[in-house]
Amino acid sequence: MFVILTYDVGEKRVNKVRKKLKKYLIWVQNSVFEGEITKGKLQQCLLELSRIINEKEDSIYIYEVNTPKFITKNIIGQEKSLDDMFL
Amino acid sequence: MFVILTYDVGEKRVNKVRKKLKKYLIWVQNSVFEGEITKGKLQQCLLELSRIINEKEDSIYIYEVNTPKFITKNIIGQEKSLDDMFL
Repeated sequence: MFVILTYDVGEKRVNKVRKKLKKYLIWVQNSVFEGEITKGKLQQCLLELSRIINEKEDSIYIYEVNTPKFITKNIIGQEKSLDDMFL
Repeated sequence: MFVILTYDVGEKRVNKVRKKLKKYLIWVQNSVFEGEITKGKLQQCLLELSRIINEKEDSIYIYEVNTPKFITKNIIGQEKSLDDMFL
């Protein structure tokens, strides 16, 4: 499936969250990861994230689309490529 | 159509961008708006945004899904409700 994952996480935890997400998805904008991922790997990823975040303060949204052809992405301004950034 | 719009915009312009987006979509996370919108209104919204942002620095991604049933949203942690926030 294709996943868009957006996060709003406290400063103390944001680097841990990004490092974890980089194992599974592609970092495409400051607060956005996306990519193809299996259901099983996504569940593993979310389990690991839930151990890092503070569920009372932090927020992670996961938008899942079964078939990428159902979703179109357009860009205004820069297409960011953060995935090579060292954390 | 259903739209997820994510942005990474310079601090000087971020409030203007949010105010503009609030006219068209729902503010659901710090850097994310979403909602049902017609093709025409979306084009108008993006035109207005393109006049605010610095295309060399800022980044706006627009993910469009024709039918909302193709997309599933899951949440870890808090579901933010920023739409009532006064800008």
